[in-house]
Amino acid sequence: MDGRDATLSAVIDSTHWLLTLSCADRPGIVHQVTGEIVEARGNITELQQFTSTESGRFFMRVQVQSGFDRSHFERAFATIAESLGAQWNLDYVGRRRRTLILASKAGHCVNDLLFRQRSGYLPVSLPLIIANHPDLGDLARFYGVPFEHHPITTPDTKAEVEKHILDVVAEHDIELVVLARYMQILSPELCEALTGKAINIHHSFLPGFKGANPYRQAHSRGVKLIGATAHFVTSDLDEGPIIEQNVRRVDHTMEVPQLVAMGQEQESRTLTEAVKLFAEHRVLLDGARTVIFS
Amino acid sequence: MDGRDATLSAVIDSTHWLLTLSCADRPGIVHQVTGEIVEARGNITELQQFTSTESGRFFMRVQVQSGFDRSHFERAFATIAESLGAQWNLDYVGRRRRTLILASKAGHCVNDLLFRQRSGYLPVSLPLIIANHPDLGDLARFYGVPFEHHPITTPDTKAEVEKHILDVVAEHDIELVVLARYMQILSPELCEALTGKAINIHHSFLPGFKGANPYRQAHSRGVKLIGATAHFVTSDLDEGPIIEQNVRRVDHTMEVPQLVAMGQEQESRTLTEAVKLFAEHRVLLDGARTVIFS
Amino acid sequence: MDGRDATLSAVIDSTHWLLTLSCADRPGIVHQVTGEIVEARGNITELQQFTSTESGRFFMRVQVQSGFDRSHFERAFATIAESLGAQWNLDYVGRRRRTLILASKAGHCVNDLLFRQRSGYLPVSLPLIIANHPDLGDLARFYGVPFEHHPITTPDTKAEVEKHILDVVAEHDIELVVLARYMQILSPELCEALTGKAINIHHSFLPGFKGANPYRQAHSRGVKLIGATAHFVTSDLDEGPIIEQNVRRVDHTMEVPQLVAMGQEQESRTLTEAVKLFAEHRVLLDGARTVIFS
Amino acid sequence: MDGRDATLSAVIDSTHWLLTLSCADRPGIVHQVTGEIVEARGNITELQQFTSTESGRFFMRVQVQSGFDRSHFERAFATIAESLGAQWNLDYVGRRRRTLILASKAGHCVNDLLFRQRSGYLPVSLPLIIANHPDLGDLARFYGVPFEHHPITTPDTKAEVEKHILDVVAEHDIELVVLARYMQILSPELCEALTGKAINIHHSFLPGFKGANPYRQAHSRGVKLIGATAHFVTSDLDEGPIIEQNVRRVDHTMEVPQLVAMGQEQESRTLTEAVKLFAEHRVLLDGARTVIFS
Repeated sequence: MDGRDATLSAVIDSTHWLLTLSCADRPGIVHQVTGEIVEARGNITELQQFTSTESGRFFMRVQVQSGFDRSHFERAFATIAESLGAQWNLDYVGRRRRTLILASKAGHCVNDLLFRQRSGYLPVSLPLIIANHPDLGDLARFYGVPFEHHPITTPDTKAEVEKHILDVVAEHDIELVVLARYMQILSPELCEALTGKAINIHHSFLPGFKGANPYRQAHSRGVKLIGATAHFVTSDLDEGPIIEQNVRRVDHTMEVPQLVAMGQEQESRTLTEAVKLFAEHRVLLDGARTVIFS
Repeated sequence: MDGRDATLSAVIDSTHWLLTLSCADRPGIVHQVTGEIVEARGNITELQQFTSTESGRFFMRVQVQSGFDRSHFERAFATIAESLGAQWNLDYVGRRRRTLILASKAGHCVNDLLFRQRSGYLPVSLPLIIANHPDLGDLARFYGVPFEHHPITTPDTKAEVEKHILDVVAEHDIELVVLARYMQILSPELCEALTGKAINIHHSFLPGFKGANPYRQAHSRGVKLIGATAHFVTSDLDEGPIIEQNVRRVDHTMEVPQLVAMGQEQESRTLTEAVKLFAEHRVLLDGARTVIFS
Repeated sequence: MDGRDATLSAVIDSTHWLLTLSCADRPGIVHQVTGEIVEARGNITELQQFTSTESGRFFMRVQVQSGFDRSHFERAFATIAESLGAQWNLDYVGRRRRTLILASKAGHCVNDLLFRQRSGYLPVSLPLIIANHPDLGDLARFYGVPFEHHPITTPDTKAEVEKHILDVVAEHDIELVVLARYMQILSPELCEALTGKAINIHHSFLPGFKGANPYRQAHSRGVKLIGATAHFVTSDLDEGPIIEQNVRRVDHTMEVPQLVAMGQEQESRTLTEAVKLFAEHRVLLDGARTVIFS
Repeated sequence: MDGRDATLSAVIDSTHWLLTLSCADRPGIVHQVTGEIVEARGNITELQQFTSTESGRFFMRVQVQSGFDRSHFERAFATIAESLGAQWNLDYVGRRRRTLILASKAGHCVNDLLFRQRSGYLPVSLPLIIANHPDLGDLARFYGVPFEHHPITTPDTKAEVEKHILDVVAEHDIELVVLARYMQILSPELCEALTGKAINIHHSFLPGFKGANPYRQAHSRGVKLIGATAHFVTSDLDEGPIIEQNVRRVDHTMEVPQLVAMGQEQESRTLTEAVKLFAEHRVLLDGARTVIFS
């Protein structure tokens, strides 16, 4: 259990483990990994494996029931992982992953995250919200989540806030940064530093619209579906590996503000689902793609 | 009833009428139009009206039950329509609209159209299929639909086939041209001649992908939804007013051929729905948008 | 504008009106009603009409732009309505309808209603929440909505609370009562008194499951979709006219608690949409069915 | 490759294997099975495993790339499987599974199955269609699938046809029986004989309706979604383990025949998907539930 979480979530059971692993494919990996689990007297309750024909990479997620000693297993497993050149992670099933929310004015995504965190749907802990506007402070306080307001008005304040974000990530050992309609373009350095652990939410349409005011463009073309895409943050704006997408039907009677409202509903739903998938170690990166073990 | 249809559809009832109308908005139009219906002793069973705040245009679709004399009503109504500067149409509910299918090799859309036409789901008559490949001839013959194979191999043969299409449209008094994966770029002249009566089907993705091999691009980005868009044909390729859209969920295990197969399922569904909406006079054009009275 | 609303919503514009009407069908109604609108110098911006072949009833929803004097129009229109034996309603577009929420312990529906009311998505005012448990008091206070806790522990306390609900409905001139997971069976008398103005939310499954613990039954049958149904309250429990339904996909890995969590997401979404449809006068009753002018 | 398939499907590659296995759970199974694969110099390209907490059963589906000798591997693996008390199957990826279609008059499901079989979407071979009405004979002939018409008019003819079905299943070594709107209640004996290899399609609604004419009941209640459920056949009519479900939105303007037509669209889609899942060995039985490795 993570020492930073003062209150142990009721769903955590220190005999249920979650192991994820990715590496270059070669024969025998599943056998080797499961051998180590057998050795540790673990029983596999769910296993998903996938090898990408495109990248030649191997991905695995295993749930294990075992009374094994964590450090003992980690030492043994580290040897295998090293021989495979693998990235891997061992966690308790249901542990709340430490998540930093970045926000701005719009509350729809933040509200959904906070409510579903409290209800237990989202296995995350929320040590802090950082926002460049004060609007969501009351909401954060209601849910008992610390809230910091750092206005970004100049390149200098932007650089300072970005440095602060990195400090917070280090200090709280943040595992996931959620851009909940943060409305700021991150610097390439920050994108780089947060690779594979920052999720953004983006409206999306069929067809895609470039440039300003996409909802107005969507209205002008009379689209029948509007949606949202949750993706990892990369320095290519709105172009990172896709984690989750949803759409809903709209019609000609809806004006731009209604499309925006319906788009927000999709955004909050989709971001919450993406955070849940990530928190449960169901999202593995395969270059520009994701492997989702849902 | 349309004289060209040898067999009268059982669902047609010459006392159920469908009136559609669009014009510049001004007060009193609904009252004026319904006054004419009252005059003709008609009873309205369904009426949908919409005024576009963007274009300022008025759109209406009315179903009327009446034993009125068609020509008598048309004369009376023509006077009103002229005073409104309106485009309008009077039809029997359930009449099969004369539809020309343009096809190529891929059979998924044509099969769905033919099957659902025969089952009675699609109120269209199909006097002819024109294709630039012979592959779908057997399918057409099975459904008893005349099939012409006109190869397009040179600019000259293309021009000849386009001229032939226009001749067929004129000869059969075609009301709708369906590009069922026709895979040919229509000339601007043909697009112009078919404005508002030709429907195309296009794959579509979130985000949109430009250039060749969109399914490969979609796979590389790891999209979670793929879909299809049915739209009116304009000279802007794949950019006409949107009629219908659908998506389905896909995942990382699906290779490009599977995505294509799933995309085809969306294409056939979506094109069939768009043809149904058009055939039932539920699609009205509002500049670059559609009003869909579904 | 409703005098009880101290603060006028910004979206209200006293020149945009919403008229709904239902009555036994007969020829000429649209013409007659729109004649009155022409008379009042109104311009129709959206009109939907439907006649039920099953019940023979006529339904209409009209949006009108006009500077007419309300009381003058109401007098004139009342005469027509009386001659038609019609139920009718005239309202401002965007007016917040006075809504009473009944709640228990579960917060998912109440949270969604409060958040979307504040964000402006739901055009309702919320003078009061009545709950038989204290759990949601903090949430209500955060949103500035008065909250009353009335425990129901005996038939007597139940009767008292029901009487209080009716008093509140009368005192605040409540237009809509929302059972946001209220978990109490209303007495036939209360159902009767709230006919056509109380909405309930109910989990729903394919196939339907009777009896206790439906999520466990759904799990045992391995359903692939779970959903929610919002319906009007009638004395037939969970059987009133349906307003809105949604489903989402689930799979075999999900245990009962996860199905419950996903069901709650569907419940909150579906109830919010139903409240929105009602608040915008888009829901008309046709016996055991609803006509939804969406 | 299956000797009965005269033409080898192009997608089959005798170095790609599919292994499915289910048994009572115990520690070490994945390790043991993958050990055998390593031994046979196979490389796992996709593996999904799930243990049901409800039933305590272990389920696995593995795709393996290997040049191993089939009979050699089967012998070795049979020993393991026996020690586990496991049901297991080894197949080529992409092999067309021998499928018998039972039909009646309605063509929507049969048409979709035949078209998608020919297009390559469905990896099945179709040695025969048996129908109790002649209506679909032409469709079958068009697709080159043998068609037998056996009218069922009396208990005796029913018994004869059921005996014939079992003979056909034995003679053609049928792996899957698809009831494509067969409209006959199978005898308990036939259900028993086809356990786990017969799929039926059933309309479905929220809420569920019992008794005759469910579409009329659905219309009377004004449901907003209609759907279809594909499930295994059991002697409990329309109650077998669920494989796949879909819904689509409907509204108050749709009369019963339209609901039926839309329901048919869901039925054909859903049945085709269920057959695809089964043919690809993605459906494993867990008592009254299914495990779907999609």
